[in-house]
Amino acid sequence: MDNKAIMAAARTIRGLSIDAIQKANSGHPGLPLGCAELGAMLYGEFLKHDPKKPLWLDRDRFVLSAGHGSMLLYAALHLSSYDISMDDIKSFRQIGSPCAGHPEYGACPGVETTTGPLGQGFATAVGMAIAETMLAARFNTGSGKIFDHYTWVLAGDGCLQEGVASEAASLAGHLGLGKLIVFYDNNSITIDGGTELSFGEDVAARFRAYGWQVLEGDMYDADEIRKLVALAKENKQQPSLIILKSIIGKGSPAVQGSAKAHGAPLGAEEAKIAKKAIGIPNNSEFWVDPEARAFFDKRLGELSAARSVWETLYANWRKKEPELAMELDAMLSGTSMSETAWPQYKQEESLATRAASGAALTAIAKAWPGLVGGSADLTGPNSTKLPGEAYSRNHRAGRMLHYGVREHAMAAISNGLALHGGFRPFCASFLVFSDYLRPSLRLSALMGLPVIYILTHDSVYVGEDGPTHQPVEHLAALRAIPNLLVLRPADAEETNEAWAMAMERRDGPTALILSRQNLGVFPKADPDWKATFRTGAYVAKNCHGEVDIVVMASGSEVELALKAASGLNTKSIRVVSVPSLESFLAQPKEIRNMLVPPEAKIIACEAGRSAWWDGIAHSFLGIERFGESGPGAKVALNLGLSLEALSNMINID
Amino acid sequence: MDNKAIMAAARTIRGLSIDAIQKANSGHPGLPLGCAELGAMLYGEFLKHDPKKPLWLDRDRFVLSAGHGSMLLYAALHLSSYDISMDDIKSFRQIGSPCAGHPEYGACPGVETTTGPLGQGFATAVGMAIAETMLAARFNTGSGKIFDHYTWVLAGDGCLQEGVASEAASLAGHLGLGKLIVFYDNNSITIDGGTELSFGEDVAARFRAYGWQVLEGDMYDADEIRKLVALAKENKQQPSLIILKSIIGKGSPAVQGSAKAHGAPLGAEEAKIAKKAIGIPNNSEFWVDPEARAFFDKRLGELSAARSVWETLYANWRKKEPELAMELDAMLSGTSMSETAWPQYKQEESLATRAASGAALTAIAKAWPGLVGGSADLTGPNSTKLPGEAYSRNHRAGRMLHYGVREHAMAAISNGLALHGGFRPFCASFLVFSDYLRPSLRLSALMGLPVIYILTHDSVYVGEDGPTHQPVEHLAALRAIPNLLVLRPADAEETNEAWAMAMERRDGPTALILSRQNLGVFPKADPDWKATFRTGAYVAKNCHGEVDIVVMASGSEVELALKAASGLNTKSIRVVSVPSLESFLAQPKEIRNMLVPPEAKIIACEAGRSAWWDGIAHSFLGIERFGESGPGAKVALNLGLSLEALSNMINID
Repeated sequence: MDNKAIMAAARTIRGLSIDAIQKANSGHPGLPLGCAELGAMLYGEFLKHDPKKPLWLDRDRFVLSAGHGSMLLYAALHLSSYDISMDDIKSFRQIGSPCAGHPEYGACPGVETTTGPLGQGFATAVGMAIAETMLAARFNTGSGKIFDHYTWVLAGDGCLQEGVASEAASLAGHLGLGKLIVFYDNNSITIDGGTELSFGEDVAARFRAYGWQVLEGDMYDADEIRKLVALAKENKQQPSLIILKSIIGKGSPAVQGSAKAHGAPLGAEEAKIAKKAIGIPNNSEFWVDPEARAFFDKRLGELSAARSVWETLYANWRKKEPELAMELDAMLSGTSMSETAWPQYKQEESLATRAASGAALTAIAKAWPGLVGGSADLTGPNSTKLPGEAYSRNHRAGRMLHYGVREHAMAAISNGLALHGGFRPFCASFLVFSDYLRPSLRLSALMGLPVIYILTHDSVYVGEDGPTHQPVEHLAALRAIPNLLVLRPADAEETNEAWAMAMERRDGPTALILSRQNLGVFPKADPDWKATFRTGAYVAKNCHGEVDIVVMASGSEVELALKAASGLNTKSIRVVSVPSLESFLAQPKEIRNMLVPPEAKIIACEAGRSAWWDGIAHSFLGIERFGESGPGAKVALNLGLSLEALSNMINID
Repeated sequence: MDNKAIMAAARTIRGLSIDAIQKANSGHPGLPLGCAELGAMLYGEFLKHDPKKPLWLDRDRFVLSAGHGSMLLYAALHLSSYDISMDDIKSFRQIGSPCAGHPEYGACPGVETTTGPLGQGFATAVGMAIAETMLAARFNTGSGKIFDHYTWVLAGDGCLQEGVASEAASLAGHLGLGKLIVFYDNNSITIDGGTELSFGEDVAARFRAYGWQVLEGDMYDADEIRKLVALAKENKQQPSLIILKSIIGKGSPAVQGSAKAHGAPLGAEEAKIAKKAIGIPNNSEFWVDPEARAFFDKRLGELSAARSVWETLYANWRKKEPELAMELDAMLSGTSMSETAWPQYKQEESLATRAASGAALTAIAKAWPGLVGGSADLTGPNSTKLPGEAYSRNHRAGRMLHYGVREHAMAAISNGLALHGGFRPFCASFLVFSDYLRPSLRLSALMGLPVIYILTHDSVYVGEDGPTHQPVEHLAALRAIPNLLVLRPADAEETNEAWAMAMERRDGPTALILSRQNLGVFPKADPDWKATFRTGAYVAKNCHGEVDIVVMASGSEVELALKAASGLNTKSIRVVSVPSLESFLAQPKEIRNMLVPPEAKIIACEAGRSAWWDGIAHSFLGIERFGESGPGAKVALNLGLSLEALSNMINID
């Protein structure tokens, strides 16, 4: 409750932000200047954390959803004694600096998630808040309340305008996430100008409609903010939105209160004027107010002491709850508790890979306590039903989430679940709607989070629902995202292996591309196919002697390729199943050539566009246009994807 | 006000829906059965339209946002005497039928937009409503109010959960679109089960917060609905949401009121039972109630008469307002009123292609009265400012829209502007955020709408904002969308041509991929380059005699290629600028070979992923991973995109 110290810290945050942005000659002063006091209070008073143990399990999570205001975060982290030096701050926005233009997860201690694309931080934080309730429900016992933390967000107008935040806010209200507290930096300014240009809604009423507690106050009244925060923390039934009326760029006489404050350095002259107005000693650069330093140093001791109390509690809990501790360890390390009892299939058995995926998922859920997830209102069609009662405000221990028709928030929330720690989240929709969640999927890949995307109904074989529901470009588009593992299994057995790969993966997301229609389980020529599968491709059917022709295919087209190859006895045809084209292309040339001899005629077949196959195949049978409404098999035929076409392609020289 | 006829029509709609879905053995009975009365009232009473002139300029627009309920629409269109025969209905969901699984724009008269992906119809309708206000403001005079129609929407829970609808609803409220009327089929059921699973928000309060008028009633009380519609039509200051409590699948005893009604045929037995319960004569299939037929036939005469009155008004207006009529004709036919005064550039002048785009846009806006558009709160950075006052609730004649930070709704609204007729819409954001609007962009392409997407900040040269803002996979991902023309001009002159191509295009969207950084205007070796440009590629720099090496590049990498080629005198190097890789790849082989001789060594260079280049280039210099935060030029160097690397690639044999 030391308002003087908070003011000193706010001065420091403003000064560091002005100087770092000026030095980089790039950056966004608007938010750090406008929210400096709040930043000081968050890190100096509100957050339960320990800067010396940034990964402490039960820390509060803070998400700067308005990621462009990154200097607020870096300045607060520096003051708090996170491992962010003044030199780091001086290297703001330079290559290799932990102080990147937007906060980058993994690059900087204390940064809980990558933000910048607006709305993502908000929605991701909803996932973190869900994670806390899940862990608390599963692990807090009479022996100790080891999970009990808040999730905090600072968001701006831009975040609240984005659809992904609307989806997440609606779900957060529905789920009654009482320990989620969002500050809305209500400065009435967007890049184009005043919010009267495009944002006239009543944000408070909207969030009340979602089921939130909405509190309102003045960004520069510290005592009021403390009261609002106390109310927010007290209300455990509803998430809270604290709307704080603020002035963008506060402290810079020339730009404060205008869109000019948002995204450009103040300039040397105005920087000087602003720093003087703020109360920073003349000619000081990267100045830290000694009072702020003293305040945060003292705070560090208190925080560390608080964490020590928790460590004792935790150690005690572990002793008293050895079984739960084992389960928690498995979850935190991302491992299973037992062997997965993979479903077994008979040759020639015919089932959709989405059905096989459902069976695998059920088996995995038994073995992996950390597996949680759900579908965007397609639980049945996506085959993602988990046994037991679903997660809800009344059943926090549930492992299946009902996301509603909110693909985008679903993916962002999955990121939050993964970031929080303890969970291996999956989420699900139709492949064609991967477009709806792409911005969050990109962040899974960028952050290296092992989120599993179950994307069913993977081609024009979807049929009657027509071109809006038939993906043709989505495999190509997903493969374009770096660090996303795209797996398209060809039968139920391959689906098991795809799931195994997804669960083994630690450093990035996996997209499982699954069929709506039945596919026959086929015998694999390669006796070690399960191992070879992991290289991205293996020999599904081999030929004697020299290979004349290689037919490469993925998913449902492997069946087509096998049929085509069986029907033609005049040539030596090898069929290669390619569950992961990118993985295969990334193999050393010798390995690729062994599987796909370059002197052979190489044909690729996939029910989609040719991109990524062009470099390896001499010819390609796929679908380069939008689909149409009709029974799936007829649609494929009509679009030229047929046994006849593939056979002809093989026969032509 | 003939409730008996409405009931007869509702019976007919239910019966046709049950039979068509049963015959197709595929489809969604839930909505057509639940909303049959409303469908009957819309087409029998509320809509101003003329089934014999489905493209009548001043018709009301109706959008079935819950597109899976397509049989409601087809049955109503058939009853209304649109050119949809009973045979068409019997071919529901078969290849070539106008009655596709989801309503397909262009395939079926009376279908105003393709729907199915939830939320899209809602947001698209907002664009249609904006279009009406724009046309009314610009063309209604004392000589006649030629534009005066409503836009109607029928949406379900799924639509209202999607973020794109939230964005659009917020903007619609902000803009006070009083002639937009949305019915919400509030059946409390989603695919997963009851809305209590995931959708507990207070929809009415939420829409009031957006600035909407919200009205509530019973789906099966025709008189009440009429009163609510009258209130909605009266209120010209606010869009209206009419929430109607309904029963999904109403009429089928076995499934009504449950999720089972949503997306599967009733089955032969239950179809019989339901039809009996509904009051359809025994053993009748595809039955039309004679009373409904008589009612709609009479209605057809009234509608036609009303349109005739308008035609007279319109003819009169044209006579009295010849200048306006000329302008309107240009807008409706998608042409210009005068030559575009393209900005001129000097060789070696250096400017960002986004800046050149802004100059071109200003010139185009003068010549093309139909050009309207805006940015998702990046008007300055995207260079999309149009002269004059922006469009707002107080200035409907404005041609620039402030979309706020709502990329997704922006694109859907642009579709609505294009669909309405009269406009050539553009919209704008950073290239990296094309992910946010991708589902709507896909629909632009699928519907063949000439929406222009201005996507600036097109590579890691964005610099300090870091990987969240640096596109590397987006060119590959956009090229994957069929019927999207992706153009990446290399300098200011090319930017003019790219804009010209975009304006010439009638049958699909164009994405203009533009640089943040300056690029020098370079001399073009091909004297006819402006014509050749349209084939997708042209010779930017040629060599004497045999071509040893071809360097293909697009956008900012053309500058790099020209530099590399100039620095090396030992080999014959041709530099080919490739503004549209897909267009070039679609050229006949002879044309491609002339430009890019296959016996030459072919190198491609682009600041992104290799997909789509793999088939033509022997080697590729690009960026296959996520970027990083730092000054743009340094980032590119650090990621290996450098003059040195390209020169080495050229030199190695």
